[in-house]
Amino acid sequence: MKNLIDFINSNNVRFIEELKEFLRIPSISNNPDHKPDMQSCSKWLAKHIESIGFEKVEVYNTPGHPIVYAEYMKAGKDKPTVLLYGHYDVQPVDPLELWTDPPFEPTIKDGKIFARGTTDDKGQLFIHLKSLEAYLKNNNSLPVNIKILYEGEEEIGSPNLPKFLEDNKELLKCNLVVISDTSMYTKGLPSICYGLRGLAYMQIDLVGPNKDLHSGSYGGGVDNPINALANLITKLKDEKGKILIDGFYDDVVPLSQKERDEFKRLPFNEENFKKELEIDEVFGEEGYTTTERLSARPTLDCNGIWGGFQGEGAKTVLPSKAGAKISMRLVPNQMPKKIAQLFEAYINKIAPKSVKVKVTDLHGGKPSVTPIDTPAINAAVESLKKGFGVEPVFMKEGGSIPIVNSFKEILGADTVLLGFGLPDENAHSPNEHLDLDNFHKGILSITHYFNELSKIK
Amino acid sequence: MKNLIDFINSNNVRFIEELKEFLRIPSISNNPDHKPDMQSCSKWLAKHIESIGFEKVEVYNTPGHPIVYAEYMKAGKDKPTVLLYGHYDVQPVDPLELWTDPPFEPTIKDGKIFARGTTDDKGQLFIHLKSLEAYLKNNNSLPVNIKILYEGEEEIGSPNLPKFLEDNKELLKCNLVVISDTSMYTKGLPSICYGLRGLAYMQIDLVGPNKDLHSGSYGGGVDNPINALANLITKLKDEKGKILIDGFYDDVVPLSQKERDEFKRLPFNEENFKKELEIDEVFGEEGYTTTERLSARPTLDCNGIWGGFQGEGAKTVLPSKAGAKISMRLVPNQMPKKIAQLFEAYINKIAPKSVKVKVTDLHGGKPSVTPIDTPAINAAVESLKKGFGVEPVFMKEGGSIPIVNSFKEILGADTVLLGFGLPDENAHSPNEHLDLDNFHKGILSITHYFNELSKIK
Repeated sequence: MKNLIDFINSNNVRFIEELKEFLRIPSISNNPDHKPDMQSCSKWLAKHIESIGFEKVEVYNTPGHPIVYAEYMKAGKDKPTVLLYGHYDVQPVDPLELWTDPPFEPTIKDGKIFARGTTDDKGQLFIHLKSLEAYLKNNNSLPVNIKILYEGEEEIGSPNLPKFLEDNKELLKCNLVVISDTSMYTKGLPSICYGLRGLAYMQIDLVGPNKDLHSGSYGGGVDNPINALANLITKLKDEKGKILIDGFYDDVVPLSQKERDEFKRLPFNEENFKKELEIDEVFGEEGYTTTERLSARPTLDCNGIWGGFQGEGAKTVLPSKAGAKISMRLVPNQMPKKIAQLFEAYINKIAPKSVKVKVTDLHGGKPSVTPIDTPAINAAVESLKKGFGVEPVFMKEGGSIPIVNSFKEILGADTVLLGFGLPDENAHSPNEHLDLDNFHKGILSITHYFNELSKIK
Repeated sequence: MKNLIDFINSNNVRFIEELKEFLRIPSISNNPDHKPDMQSCSKWLAKHIESIGFEKVEVYNTPGHPIVYAEYMKAGKDKPTVLLYGHYDVQPVDPLELWTDPPFEPTIKDGKIFARGTTDDKGQLFIHLKSLEAYLKNNNSLPVNIKILYEGEEEIGSPNLPKFLEDNKELLKCNLVVISDTSMYTKGLPSICYGLRGLAYMQIDLVGPNKDLHSGSYGGGVDNPINALANLITKLKDEKGKILIDGFYDDVVPLSQKERDEFKRLPFNEENFKKELEIDEVFGEEGYTTTERLSARPTLDCNGIWGGFQGEGAKTVLPSKAGAKISMRLVPNQMPKKIAQLFEAYINKIAPKSVKVKVTDLHGGKPSVTPIDTPAINAAVESLKKGFGVEPVFMKEGGSIPIVNSFKEILGADTVLLGFGLPDENAHSPNEHLDLDNFHKGILSITHYFNELSKIK
């Protein structure tokens, strides 16, 4: 291992320069204008995987954005096969004016690299690639068999990945999936994520009158779709955050006492949390602690709202249309399709006749929990201890990686989630960044991990 | 009068060509980018007034947009002095994509002229100018003394006009103000508007966390400013449209039985109203008819709302900010300043501690009612009868022309509101237009009106 660690330590600057190249490609998957960027990003990635020593690299086209696949199977049949999953697509960048530096011009400050995709997920998948490079350039071999699967549609709900898994079950056959796309609990504390919330992401569109009206001439006689939309949103949850959709909590598995005890052991400081976000009060469902609400309880949030005049000054319009994006985070055993149906049924039940309402299911992902008492997890604990010099914690994360369920259901493989991001690195927000110390220690940890995994019989 | 009527009939095409020139100037007062257009529009207007035969024309600069003033005082001291008020500024044009033709390229279809400002108010003030031109070019004189006052800030609440009136009381001294900036009740039915609603236009800005957050990582622990905003808006009025702000109705003068009887005589067809707007149900305060609610009762409408992700697809953001524009139409004796204060106090009372809320009073205007049993009104009835061949109706209008109160309070003059627009001409909406038959009959009516006014002792 020493030669590998030396290689990783002495090539750190070059690794970061290469990552910058990757980050410069504006691979925003939800915007059709960026389709060419998605193409060139997938090609760049395939070429890079070849350059570190992989012989078999393929770019698969899908009805959406391409999938990059590569494999190394020379470790031998007695060694485990590990599927490394990641995504090269990124979130949109608006509001652009809140970025201190351009989102696709990586900038290093205070030991952090700033750009869209640094922590979610280009920077994290690059940790795997640089570890693989260390093995291949120094040992001319890998200690385990590796399959690489990078998609370009994670941020839009992976619409084409399940079919790809179904169609390529044999190709993708593996003993274990490893993903780095989550966060450590806090800086200096390496973490293994054993639970992820699911997601049901909806859009509501309201139409009142068939055109924008003068609010003076029509106000008082015609329902206003913005006011009506506000009423609908208000009825989705009560003032404490309890969701009011009929049947919403029916399938929720209650938190066990053991789990609640574990939550209490996490080093969460509510005062610091409030200070960091500059809020006077936390918010959420009664009867649960903030840490429980942040990752182990379902939620409902408006992700966007629009309607009428949004410019400077005053325009006295009674608008024709208004709309909102609303998503729900789900926990075991809530199923996104069922929740989407309950949502739509509830909206249709409460909507007034004075406006027309359309509900669209934009995408969904199932919640997941992985077993934590397996050889692969024990190997991860060992490796993180070596990479960071600290005993890792087990945690649940509030976000969703729906594909984890597909790996289990379609490939029969469990997933180990080794996240090297930090919760305050602005994933999905302006000024997204990645701590470069975690990037470096991540590469070391993953390198130990491949070695530890090779020992499993 | 015959020579005047012949002149008006034979010059109609030229009048419309000149109006088109006026409409092509994008004089949007609420957008600083259009400041140069406001300047050139005021200059164009001053030059046009000179061209029809006025000797004294001035453009007054204000801290905002210029005021155009002109006068003709040669009718003699025994003749009344009539102040003609209008505004050359127009509303913004968004959503631009809903315009069939470009908003500043006037287009004639089906006897209507389409462009921003046609009915509100460039087309209507042009009716006055063309009548004055008929007198000056044919008789070389006017039957009454005329003062013209055209401002460029009506659509943003006339912030500089009251001071201009105060500073120029002597210059603007008059017996009567005449404004054409309202609508006829329906096509073919000339109307005199005797009541206008007032306005209190507010903005609410909410801040939750200090930056946009990932809704998966933070949802459930941090209040969402969009959800919080929806809750605030919902609490502003009940589901029937009754406004819940403490003290809101305290100063409302109840409708008299006589007035309610008059409302019943208006040719309002609720089925046609719904069909035209493509709504399944009308909406509003219980205990009042739709016509009453549309013009004689106070209302509250969201004019705009924004927050979070508004693009295509899904972005799982828990936004930092959200905001809304909310305006209230007022009736006698509700005062806009007091209503704005009640609004702010109520919002502060109901706002949760988990978000920061800022309320801004964007602008206001007082409601007004003018006496209808005066010689000037009787002359208007006569003139409209001659111009349209039909007995006019008396009506209240839902919109606001706050300056009507200032004319009464500062200049001591009553206002006669002779509107030649139609309620479905899309004032403030895409595809604004003006009926060219009403334009023509408007010029004839106003020409009779100046003549009738000259007979008043």
